[in-house]
Amino acid sequence: MLRTVRRWLIGPPLPTEQMTEERLGRFQALAVLSSDALSSVAYATEEILMVLILAGTGAVGLSLPIAIGIAVLLIIVASSYYQTVHAYPGGGGAYLVTKDNLGTLPSLVAGAALLIDYVLTVAVSISAGVAAVTSAFPVLFRWRVPLALGAVAMITLVNLRGVRESGRVFTIPTYFFITTIFVMIITGVAKAIMYGVEPGAAATTSLPVQEDIGIFLILRAFASGCTALTGMEAISDGVPIFKPPEADNAGKTLLWMVGILVSMFLGLTLLANLYGILPHAQGHETVVSQLARTIFGGESPLYFAVQAATALILILAANTSYSDFPRLSMWMARDKFLPRQLAMLGDRLVYSNGIMLLGTLASALIIIFGASTHALIPLYAVGVFTSFTLSQASMVLRWRKLRTPGWRTRATFNGVGAVSTGIVLIVIASVKFIHGAWIVLLLIPTFVKMFLIIHRHYENVASELTLKKKPPAPVRRHVVIVPIAGLHRGVMKAIQYAITLDGELHMVTVEIDKEQTEKLKKRWKEYYPDIELEVVPSPYRSVVRPLMEFVDSFIQEEGDYVTMVIPEFVTAKWWHRFLHNQTAVLLKRAFLYGRRTWEGRFRVITGVPFYLTR
Amino acid sequence: MLRTVRRWLIGPPLPTEQMTEERLGRFQALAVLSSDALSSVAYATEEILMVLILAGTGAVGLSLPIAIGIAVLLIIVASSYYQTVHAYPGGGGAYLVTKDNLGTLPSLVAGAALLIDYVLTVAVSISAGVAAVTSAFPVLFRWRVPLALGAVAMITLVNLRGVRESGRVFTIPTYFFITTIFVMIITGVAKAIMYGVEPGAAATTSLPVQEDIGIFLILRAFASGCTALTGMEAISDGVPIFKPPEADNAGKTLLWMVGILVSMFLGLTLLANLYGILPHAQGHETVVSQLARTIFGGESPLYFAVQAATALILILAANTSYSDFPRLSMWMARDKFLPRQLAMLGDRLVYSNGIMLLGTLASALIIIFGASTHALIPLYAVGVFTSFTLSQASMVLRWRKLRTPGWRTRATFNGVGAVSTGIVLIVIASVKFIHGAWIVLLLIPTFVKMFLIIHRHYENVASELTLKKKPPAPVRRHVVIVPIAGLHRGVMKAIQYAITLDGELHMVTVEIDKEQTEKLKKRWKEYYPDIELEVVPSPYRSVVRPLMEFVDSFIQEEGDYVTMVIPEFVTAKWWHRFLHNQTAVLLKRAFLYGRRTWEGRFRVITGVPFYLTR
Repeated sequence: MLRTVRRWLIGPPLPTEQMTEERLGRFQALAVLSSDALSSVAYATEEILMVLILAGTGAVGLSLPIAIGIAVLLIIVASSYYQTVHAYPGGGGAYLVTKDNLGTLPSLVAGAALLIDYVLTVAVSISAGVAAVTSAFPVLFRWRVPLALGAVAMITLVNLRGVRESGRVFTIPTYFFITTIFVMIITGVAKAIMYGVEPGAAATTSLPVQEDIGIFLILRAFASGCTALTGMEAISDGVPIFKPPEADNAGKTLLWMVGILVSMFLGLTLLANLYGILPHAQGHETVVSQLARTIFGGESPLYFAVQAATALILILAANTSYSDFPRLSMWMARDKFLPRQLAMLGDRLVYSNGIMLLGTLASALIIIFGASTHALIPLYAVGVFTSFTLSQASMVLRWRKLRTPGWRTRATFNGVGAVSTGIVLIVIASVKFIHGAWIVLLLIPTFVKMFLIIHRHYENVASELTLKKKPPAPVRRHVVIVPIAGLHRGVMKAIQYAITLDGELHMVTVEIDKEQTEKLKKRWKEYYPDIELEVVPSPYRSVVRPLMEFVDSFIQEEGDYVTMVIPEFVTAKWWHRFLHNQTAVLLKRAFLYGRRTWEGRFRVITGVPFYLTR
Repeated sequence: MLRTVRRWLIGPPLPTEQMTEERLGRFQALAVLSSDALSSVAYATEEILMVLILAGTGAVGLSLPIAIGIAVLLIIVASSYYQTVHAYPGGGGAYLVTKDNLGTLPSLVAGAALLIDYVLTVAVSISAGVAAVTSAFPVLFRWRVPLALGAVAMITLVNLRGVRESGRVFTIPTYFFITTIFVMIITGVAKAIMYGVEPGAAATTSLPVQEDIGIFLILRAFASGCTALTGMEAISDGVPIFKPPEADNAGKTLLWMVGILVSMFLGLTLLANLYGILPHAQGHETVVSQLARTIFGGESPLYFAVQAATALILILAANTSYSDFPRLSMWMARDKFLPRQLAMLGDRLVYSNGIMLLGTLASALIIIFGASTHALIPLYAVGVFTSFTLSQASMVLRWRKLRTPGWRTRATFNGVGAVSTGIVLIVIASVKFIHGAWIVLLLIPTFVKMFLIIHRHYENVASELTLKKKPPAPVRRHVVIVPIAGLHRGVMKAIQYAITLDGELHMVTVEIDKEQTEKLKKRWKEYYPDIELEVVPSPYRSVVRPLMEFVDSFIQEEGDYVTMVIPEFVTAKWWHRFLHNQTAVLLKRAFLYGRRTWEGRFRVITGVPFYLTR
């Protein structure tokens, strides 16, 4: 039954040969790879304003210069990645680039930062997408956590099915979002110029001043706005999905993306300033929703178009993590830093274990932080900027090593990128420390430690399994034991099987009740007059322990094997299992884990199935 | 580690020979067997008053006549059980007596009613005991559920250890309770006579009349008070623990018990009337606590003595269920109406599974009903009176069958008991129906159905296992298969073992990746030049399915066996297991349950352990 449900949800398995890469043109690739980056404009301006209003309504005017600063940073990072795209046409994820140039430990830091970042992207994007929906329909606000969890479950399922048609699916919502936002910016600016603006909340409301305007507050606002940079690395990670010439196409797409991103981000911040929009303290309506409502009117179809487009692109942004996270964990699993199950291709030709892990972790975050974008943001940027810095620093080393023509210029570009993102990383980590950045600063080394422990385990296993060590001792003595509790057809089957095994045969019963043993012995004589039934006493009524001791008496030297043959009931209905003593299971567990046997002397348990038909 | 914790909590296992019955004299037996019955006076009066105040403060005066009615019923039931004690000196539990005289189905009804009753006894007694504590220390009121769960956990643990010294442990609190209650009754009555009574709440408060005084309300009050009868059957169940002459001693103890019970119950109801005590609507202070506070003063040590004695006896009352429930479920498991695990004597010579089941169910009830005695009571009496009625009706039949001298008188006694408890059962079931009795009226047939399904399953299994059917077909062909994914010491061990098994040997690898298969084949030639490595393609990357098909190609006729030998890693640390593909487990599950094989053709899976040392 479980199988049917699974097949209905996930679809039938696909043959390996269907694994082909879909190549995308620039127009489609922009849609697929930039949804994460573009979607961040849905909350970046709001995050800046949320910090500034702490210094009262007068401070919100600072949002525009701060946004310009972030736009400059965006352009620096983009030109730095433009180099990476050409240097790593096979895909230049921070983990691979860092491993290549800075070595294992930094690459693990990058890997940890990225994995955390992907989980956060899902949690933040879905939370923000749900916020876009609840801004339009406030009655849904109290259901935001279940709504967000439902969205995560849906995306997880879609990805488990394997998103083959990703290119086509992405194009429409991404361009829909770009169009609506630009229409809003143009309409908003035009209206403001033509009709002037009625004084908005920023002019009429007088908020209490909780903090003075100072460098610290400005840095905090800047750090919050830096979430606009998330998703920048997607194009450089995904060079191989471009049509040839890959690097060339990817580079051009990157430039287009940063152009669109900078215009939208600055445009929205400008609008918020023009119309005097303030973020809602309780977060019931987003800044973008307020803007759209003011410019188009709350009942206008254009208002709902903006909200729908925002919600859609945010869900798509979460979706990009669903290809990045499983791919990165597959690489790390192949390098033996993560459990090898993460490197297994599932039924539908996707790394299903990674997808499910991502869905689970993101759901946990959403529950813990109550689906609040604002609560999650401080955790967000640290991971992103750690991987930016490491990947660009790696590029600088690479140029120094290769010394290709013009390497100095290239190294300078990447160097400026590395230094500026490095500085921003320090700024974010310090000003956001108490707001949540400490969690990530704690998680990154924890993850690195975990990667190293896992790696050591796999290395240990490999060294124990290597054929270079002396081969296992040949079988010297093989004893076959059948424990007999009663005499029935299941036991007879086991005895019959045991006889074929060609070892020293011992039939043994554990005496818990004297009377029952006597009865059993009598019946035994009737059916097996030629085979002796040995009796082991059990004063404490345990079946497992006396059997274990009996078995161990036969394994004295290397090459001694004991096979214990037990009848194993296979019940017709799953719940029937609870009606049978699980002695077989207990025996097996005790034998395997109870007392560890040494090299070359072994206890093997064999269950001879007896199928119950009713 | 788990083992150490377990041993520390439960104690080391005890040898079977230590199983001896402790025989008790009348003085001790009264303490052990009557705690359940006597403890019910702690809440019975309160339950009557809670119904009556619905008709306003004027109605509470009816509590005394109602209590007298219940006392008469108590005496009838006691004299009926006096007969049972002499007729079943081996212990006359309702299940056994009913099975003996009325047949299987009624005995199952009695069994279901009793099992439910025992669980309710634990939940009600513990909740009432916690109420006694929180009456004295109101700050604890909000912690009542965790407190009650803690108490259940404690009693469960104590019983899992095996309560050998039960007689001694019980004597003190039971007689302490009897003494304090009698002191309170005598002091209260004496004070009232000598000094008169200040008008209590009943005189000064004017409660809104929610219902008219009518026959229905009076019946409901009567039904609520009938909880005073719970635990009456304990002595007739436990005749064998008396010193000889058992029946005689048990009969006398029963008379003593009913005398004490009736005096305490009537005394407390009288006091409540004299002092005009009303039950608290929110249930923050019990009636007994209010009485003790009024009579002794809230700061007096005597007040705390009453509360402590009440809490103690209620916990002891719960404890009696801990011997009754496991004993009854053991009997029913032996009769194949419950899972046979319930008939297994544990390490400490107690039926541990039954004890744990009882603890779990009672905890669930406490959580569901928020540790509220008042909410649980309506569920309570139905089960008790069902078993009373059935057990006494059985006795009538028994006398008619035996026709011993004086059988008519005896039958009359039991007949009166059966008829009156039967009528009360109908009354309780109707007036308490919507308050919770419906749950029990639904549960009893559900349980009976479950007993029958379990019974049928065991009968089916027995018929499949019987040696009267033709013996399993002898082994005709034995194929041994070793699936090879890679070549390492674990696999070598499995191969070595497979060779000793003396069957047709097949080495097989599942091809998921062409390149890897080629590599493996090359290495294979190096190590095993004489053995062929067969290759099975797997276009869908599944390991399990192609192996299953390969195996099934060998089992065509009766007597065909396939043994699949797989290396099984035993990791050094438990969490290392998550770092290995659980292919062995998956294979085993698929082989046993995936496609059911038919009689005489079998797939056996043998795991050859490979111990990882680090």
